[in-house]
Amino acid sequence: MYIDVLWVKFLKFPKDFLMGFSESGFQFEMGYPGDEDPNTDWWLWVHSPDNIAAGIVSGHLPEHGPAYLRLYKYDHDLGEKLGANVLRLGIEWSRIFPRPTRDIPATIERDDSGVISMVELNETALKKLVEKANKNAVEKYLAVFKDWVSRGKKLIVNLNHFTLPSWLHEPLEVRSKGVFNAPSGWLSEEIIVEFTKYAYAAAYFFGEYVDYWSTLNEPNVVAIMGYLQVKSGFPPGIPSMNYTMLALRNQIIAHARAYDALKQSTGKPIGVILNYMWFEPYRVENEDDVAACNEISYMYNLLFTEAVKSGSSIIISSNSLKNKLDWIGVNYYTRMVVTREKTSKTNWIPVPGYGYLCTPGGVSKAGRPCSEFGWETYPEGLEKILLMLHEKYKLPLIVTENGVADAHDALRPRYLIQHIEAVGKAIQKGVDVRGYLHWALIDNYEWAMGYNMKFGLLKVDYESKKRYIRPSALVYREIALNNELPDELVFYN
Amino acid sequence: MYIDVLWVKFLKFPKDFLMGFSESGFQFEMGYPGDEDPNTDWWLWVHSPDNIAAGIVSGHLPEHGPAYLRLYKYDHDLGEKLGANVLRLGIEWSRIFPRPTRDIPATIERDDSGVISMVELNETALKKLVEKANKNAVEKYLAVFKDWVSRGKKLIVNLNHFTLPSWLHEPLEVRSKGVFNAPSGWLSEEIIVEFTKYAYAAAYFFGEYVDYWSTLNEPNVVAIMGYLQVKSGFPPGIPSMNYTMLALRNQIIAHARAYDALKQSTGKPIGVILNYMWFEPYRVENEDDVAACNEISYMYNLLFTEAVKSGSSIIISSNSLKNKLDWIGVNYYTRMVVTREKTSKTNWIPVPGYGYLCTPGGVSKAGRPCSEFGWETYPEGLEKILLMLHEKYKLPLIVTENGVADAHDALRPRYLIQHIEAVGKAIQKGVDVRGYLHWALIDNYEWAMGYNMKFGLLKVDYESKKRYIRPSALVYREIALNNELPDELVFYN
Amino acid sequence: MYIDVLWVKFLKFPKDFLMGFSESGFQFEMGYPGDEDPNTDWWLWVHSPDNIAAGIVSGHLPEHGPAYLRLYKYDHDLGEKLGANVLRLGIEWSRIFPRPTRDIPATIERDDSGVISMVELNETALKKLVEKANKNAVEKYLAVFKDWVSRGKKLIVNLNHFTLPSWLHEPLEVRSKGVFNAPSGWLSEEIIVEFTKYAYAAAYFFGEYVDYWSTLNEPNVVAIMGYLQVKSGFPPGIPSMNYTMLALRNQIIAHARAYDALKQSTGKPIGVILNYMWFEPYRVENEDDVAACNEISYMYNLLFTEAVKSGSSIIISSNSLKNKLDWIGVNYYTRMVVTREKTSKTNWIPVPGYGYLCTPGGVSKAGRPCSEFGWETYPEGLEKILLMLHEKYKLPLIVTENGVADAHDALRPRYLIQHIEAVGKAIQKGVDVRGYLHWALIDNYEWAMGYNMKFGLLKVDYESKKRYIRPSALVYREIALNNELPDELVFYN
Amino acid sequence: MYIDVLWVKFLKFPKDFLMGFSESGFQFEMGYPGDEDPNTDWWLWVHSPDNIAAGIVSGHLPEHGPAYLRLYKYDHDLGEKLGANVLRLGIEWSRIFPRPTRDIPATIERDDSGVISMVELNETALKKLVEKANKNAVEKYLAVFKDWVSRGKKLIVNLNHFTLPSWLHEPLEVRSKGVFNAPSGWLSEEIIVEFTKYAYAAAYFFGEYVDYWSTLNEPNVVAIMGYLQVKSGFPPGIPSMNYTMLALRNQIIAHARAYDALKQSTGKPIGVILNYMWFEPYRVENEDDVAACNEISYMYNLLFTEAVKSGSSIIISSNSLKNKLDWIGVNYYTRMVVTREKTSKTNWIPVPGYGYLCTPGGVSKAGRPCSEFGWETYPEGLEKILLMLHEKYKLPLIVTENGVADAHDALRPRYLIQHIEAVGKAIQKGVDVRGYLHWALIDNYEWAMGYNMKFGLLKVDYESKKRYIRPSALVYREIALNNELPDELVFYN
Repeated sequence: MYIDVLWVKFLKFPKDFLMGFSESGFQFEMGYPGDEDPNTDWWLWVHSPDNIAAGIVSGHLPEHGPAYLRLYKYDHDLGEKLGANVLRLGIEWSRIFPRPTRDIPATIERDDSGVISMVELNETALKKLVEKANKNAVEKYLAVFKDWVSRGKKLIVNLNHFTLPSWLHEPLEVRSKGVFNAPSGWLSEEIIVEFTKYAYAAAYFFGEYVDYWSTLNEPNVVAIMGYLQVKSGFPPGIPSMNYTMLALRNQIIAHARAYDALKQSTGKPIGVILNYMWFEPYRVENEDDVAACNEISYMYNLLFTEAVKSGSSIIISSNSLKNKLDWIGVNYYTRMVVTREKTSKTNWIPVPGYGYLCTPGGVSKAGRPCSEFGWETYPEGLEKILLMLHEKYKLPLIVTENGVADAHDALRPRYLIQHIEAVGKAIQKGVDVRGYLHWALIDNYEWAMGYNMKFGLLKVDYESKKRYIRPSALVYREIALNNELPDELVFYN
Repeated sequence: MYIDVLWVKFLKFPKDFLMGFSESGFQFEMGYPGDEDPNTDWWLWVHSPDNIAAGIVSGHLPEHGPAYLRLYKYDHDLGEKLGANVLRLGIEWSRIFPRPTRDIPATIERDDSGVISMVELNETALKKLVEKANKNAVEKYLAVFKDWVSRGKKLIVNLNHFTLPSWLHEPLEVRSKGVFNAPSGWLSEEIIVEFTKYAYAAAYFFGEYVDYWSTLNEPNVVAIMGYLQVKSGFPPGIPSMNYTMLALRNQIIAHARAYDALKQSTGKPIGVILNYMWFEPYRVENEDDVAACNEISYMYNLLFTEAVKSGSSIIISSNSLKNKLDWIGVNYYTRMVVTREKTSKTNWIPVPGYGYLCTPGGVSKAGRPCSEFGWETYPEGLEKILLMLHEKYKLPLIVTENGVADAHDALRPRYLIQHIEAVGKAIQKGVDVRGYLHWALIDNYEWAMGYNMKFGLLKVDYESKKRYIRPSALVYREIALNNELPDELVFYN
Repeated sequence: MYIDVLWVKFLKFPKDFLMGFSESGFQFEMGYPGDEDPNTDWWLWVHSPDNIAAGIVSGHLPEHGPAYLRLYKYDHDLGEKLGANVLRLGIEWSRIFPRPTRDIPATIERDDSGVISMVELNETALKKLVEKANKNAVEKYLAVFKDWVSRGKKLIVNLNHFTLPSWLHEPLEVRSKGVFNAPSGWLSEEIIVEFTKYAYAAAYFFGEYVDYWSTLNEPNVVAIMGYLQVKSGFPPGIPSMNYTMLALRNQIIAHARAYDALKQSTGKPIGVILNYMWFEPYRVENEDDVAACNEISYMYNLLFTEAVKSGSSIIISSNSLKNKLDWIGVNYYTRMVVTREKTSKTNWIPVPGYGYLCTPGGVSKAGRPCSEFGWETYPEGLEKILLMLHEKYKLPLIVTENGVADAHDALRPRYLIQHIEAVGKAIQKGVDVRGYLHWALIDNYEWAMGYNMKFGLLKVDYESKKRYIRPSALVYREIALNNELPDELVFYN
Repeated sequence: MYIDVLWVKFLKFPKDFLMGFSESGFQFEMGYPGDEDPNTDWWLWVHSPDNIAAGIVSGHLPEHGPAYLRLYKYDHDLGEKLGANVLRLGIEWSRIFPRPTRDIPATIERDDSGVISMVELNETALKKLVEKANKNAVEKYLAVFKDWVSRGKKLIVNLNHFTLPSWLHEPLEVRSKGVFNAPSGWLSEEIIVEFTKYAYAAAYFFGEYVDYWSTLNEPNVVAIMGYLQVKSGFPPGIPSMNYTMLALRNQIIAHARAYDALKQSTGKPIGVILNYMWFEPYRVENEDDVAACNEISYMYNLLFTEAVKSGSSIIISSNSLKNKLDWIGVNYYTRMVVTREKTSKTNWIPVPGYGYLCTPGGVSKAGRPCSEFGWETYPEGLEKILLMLHEKYKLPLIVTENGVADAHDALRPRYLIQHIEAVGKAIQKGVDVRGYLHWALIDNYEWAMGYNMKFGLLKVDYESKKRYIRPSALVYREIALNNELPDELVFYN
């Protein structure tokens, strides 16, 4: 079939194309008594009365969530009926290791520039690590994974999605006592070692069921939201360009070391999932704006993958980082339009009225509809990002997140079709895109915004935990079951 | 399945429930060269350069339309695949009789009050009438009807949907020369006789294929838009309460006489299709507002059916009008909120910000989303109208029109579900609702607004005439194929 | 002083520069019992229940107005205190001659093309005419004029401002019976003769007090609103390009003959007041748009003055029309942006979102604030109009209307300053602008919109008839009393 | 005169009523090279690249400001011409003492509960203190004060308006190193002692010229913006209810001790200036909402004055705080509407769409116009605050701030009149209001918002430093010069 001017022609996806959904742990798992996980930085952060009073977080609590950990079969049924053949799930580090793993011995090497270039566990250490793991949590995740895999579906597992064990990050104390007077998460080098241990354990427990591994979800967002754009309400909310870079650097190294651990244990493709924005200059023929655009695009979209593919980026270089990437996960929502003000101290300024900076439920300055988050619909950016990454790295790409906050499904049907079409066009141009995973199957907990942002094809009634279908779910099903974006002739014959 | 707070529980429709679409002639038929019909008042009206320059009509022309007369098989295929088991179609009087039928003799009687109480044709007259009919037009309609009926579907045929032959109504001359110096349509009594002849002919030609007959579509709108709310751009656009009442009166009698003609020839159920608004007082406890509401509700919603059911209404009474109604067609779009201003000369005033008087694409004062026509979503009104009509007349009801101008399908999925749910609730309360016909399967020509208003589940590309699917078509299909509004459990098992 | 970026530098107006206010009869005079004038087309039009029910007129009634005819001393006091040295007032033809003057003999000549080229009254006829005039009305106007002139102020009198005696124009009958079956105002040639008689009488009665005469106010608006853009609610609301041109033609001749009558009797400068829009092409480099712009600009802004200055325009040519113009009254409110659609039947299309076609209280597509009428603030247009007229005719110009519908005075202070500045700039460039008359000193009756539009520097409480001061009145006073737009240094020293 | 429905009747202010303007140091003084003061917490805060990049501050810099310290004569001229008879000015502590005064010995006593109940300097200490003061700064302020006072005008001086010397508060280090690892401003008790020394010095240098003293400006805002509502962008931006209370407590004691110092030296009336909001329950009959409203109203509006008048409030009680208040400065801008959510952890929640939480340039949910800051116009609140404070304390009140961010003067004329009328009504009801000081005479630096918010009756061109007059300045002048809000009759005679 389909829709509007945007619909050009029949578009068939490759055989084995992955169509599915993405989930994380913290945002989906909780919802039934007994399933809470109070051992993360985010748990502390969103429960802090000071944060709630200050409006830094919503006051909504994750323990009232969609309860995926209890209702996974229900959701797997629904996902399957909508045509999904893949899920991307997250494991909560804090569930596997609610207590510190610092005592597990590891062999650590550094290269000449001081970068941690090796973290290895001997057999004894691995055994102790496995014993230290929370058996209930491991079994729970195994049950979830098995249920999905036993349906003949594919599984992508991501090790870390924002939340850190509170023994590694205590953001409230970091804020009141100072960055180096409390566990400071990605600002402290020790996290590299502990993350690698966690990767060894994950490979050990779950390696059998996982088709694609990812180490980190959106490390660029973690660094920027936590230490630069602090108005987003991410912990610890301390603005400092230095810390931003430090958090990025430690995540890069942690990725590389976790890559080693997973590779050695499983042999499966190992990637990282990043958030991508398509950056555009405000004044397309203005040199300053174009330069600003290129600079920020490098910093946001490329710095991380440059480091772990070529081994060298502007903030870190080391042979121990080289070729630690088998695939890239692409999370894409919208663009950003940037300009440069000569009188400003900053090198670039995002232009309000475009991309992430629009009126919720309004229309962008370019006339595009905007989500309840105030994010502009800009599907062209997804195609461009895929082309750019392909040209640069020639690696397999998977769209690991794409979706829209839209409680009443006023934008989602078109948003969905337009972005899947963007993927199709990239494939037609030779890009190796392996899959499209929508964010999300069901409504979930949107970090500092709580339950205010509704990203589900299925609505969740948080009282009854029942899932209801938004119309776009029917659109998704048409596409997924046919593995194509049919024009109406195809569809009707 | 389904959606949002509005979705309460599983709702199963009766066996043989009619699910389908409504169409009229003028708004759908044209689009290919050779299919134009220049012999109507509306053709003259929308082509008038003065009207276009004055902004009274859009300047869009009906001959660029969706071309149903040529592409009916295509549309029947699509309708069938979306689950329709019924169509309501219109015949264009002017196509059957492009030239006057005044010369066909008829026997006319009047009752004591002067109401034309009988119009009969003897055999010779009927034969002459049949000969006078345009054979090509008759065959075209037969082909259309047969194609649909041969699929095992039901057919409702409506004799007159706004457009009058220009030999009976020349609105431009009426306007410039005065009402009684040119053919004045429903203001002249002769139309009663000619309309009855037309009904005889229609029964003769098409009786075999028709399951339900309707005489007129929205005679209340014809009278009010043409002679009162003239800003709507309907011909002849001459505001006069007297003419409004005269047009209503002549349509009432014409209906009754056409009823006689159709009944005698076919024996099928014969009804009339009216436009309904649910009227509400602005200040619910204010006596003036409640009185205003009751008065206008009687005038708009009940006057016509009172006359042709009981034989008596405030503008006309005659035994010859009594019991001329077997079913009622309900066209429902939104409500109207009314108040009374003591200082005003009018008895009631519609309140802006509700019902038909909202900002296009905006939100009503009650927080309801509004269509691109500026019409508020108000499904409660449909249920209430059905209950009111049932209580009053105990006749079979068919929702013959319901839909929303919404090019990007931002409101239609919810609109559709909510109004079908309203029908279901009325049925559960005992109302004899026989069917729900959506307006419309495809985009069409919206009178003075031209192609600006998009009512189709399927989008029409007016260049290629190709139909594309809006997401709500998938929603409609789910409901129609299952003959139920499933909640999600039902839907997924 | 003054304001914002718009304020460049000190601007001194010429000695004897006219600063004042404009008023008409119908919109201002009534308000006290006994002062009603029911003998006009507009009185019939705005009282028509059909018109009110149709929303063609507001339902507000002129007899509840600001009561200038009773309170003129109060208003003259206020105007004087705000610094006015001139008033433009209107006489109501229907007050002077409530009954037909057709019986007064006149000598009429036509030229070869049939244009009425002379209308003369001999002494006897003039005497009979004077006797026929309503003495009360004459004395009332004399009292008003004397009160103002006795303050040492200047007076501009305009003979006709929209309203016609109902013996010459019965718009309701015109509409229902046809244009030529009732007195049809400017569509009938007889009005030329009667208007000339009225001019003779006015000169006779009031010549002594008048400094500048104007024959007609906005004859272009009368023709277009009455016979083309009928949605504006002007009588008789019959769209026809032919009638538009006929109404224009008859007004042109009537002006010329009234000019003769006034000139012969008074020797004072005689002009006409027109409405001006500044037309701009939508796509400035598009030939079609530029051509459309030029065509409509000629029709709207120039056709009338071409005819009565050069004696020749595209709709009428006659030596008897030549040089019948001593000054031009410029009414300016905003611009119009036009485009041409090749597929359209019309030669040009106004572009919504600019000029007169904006959202009330909103912002134009060019980012300009818009009045409660939905009119864009566009002061550049006033300067351009003045320059264009000067270049074309080298006649004295007076800005006879300029103002903004703005109940809460949110836009008026800037609007006022910007438009006075535009006048000042035109003067600096050599244009002979003699004065700036604001519309209006007080709130008044805005034709079909009734009291909804508030144009006064002074607010009128229609209950008590008391006048209140809006802040912009203080701004006006600063400018008028100083006869300059001072920058702040000038102002504060 | 005046305006709109709101204008009821003539209102005469008491003889000697103070009409004027308020200014602070940091927001007004800078603008010419050489006048910068880099020794404050706010200077560090608004220059921090991290803060700018994070959007916590605007990036505008105070050294580009209106340059009052250089242009005070110009402003005094303008203020005088607008009718002011009083100014409220601020002294910058950091200018008088750019270096620590900790070395100046003082005698300190504490009461039983540990509250610092006395801070005294002996003669030697005072001499050393005076010597330590920056002579240039002292002379500059003396010149400013003398220029104003020599015009026969009154002077109110406030000791501290937000900015602290950086030797007492280093907010960037507080944030990165932790609250107690850097100078922490109002969180540390030492500031009480140093503030008292500063008060001694101020009395010594300026006592001769000051009619009313104020110790602190809006200590409630300092505590809440700095330590609770951290999204406002105030230093140090660390949310903690504990710190909020601590900052309040230390300011209360500091006020009391400064009161002692000023009283002993000058004998003039000594007050404090607080920010006031009028709190209203969202659901007026809901007990929870009413309770929430009362609680927050106590905390925000009364806690400080309770402590320094009665000596006892819920966070501190001491005889040494009793009766340390001769007058109250009332800063009022708008209201806040609050509700209580039972499921929320907070005791009260402000309701968006009212008071401070509206769309900039929009309309509140109550239909009131909102400033460019998004603050609702709510003059009733000012009258109610004045009545409440009078009933509670029977002290002289001065409205020390009231104004509106409104670059184009679209709201200010009405805002100004309505709030002055509110003051007049309070006086008529017996409240001892001594004056109305508008915020502000000229545009200035609005803390974290920089130059984006325009509060001036006079616009400042920051390039040329020239002042331009907004229309409301003329309104202000009418009122101030007449010492009344004249109705139009009074005004015009």
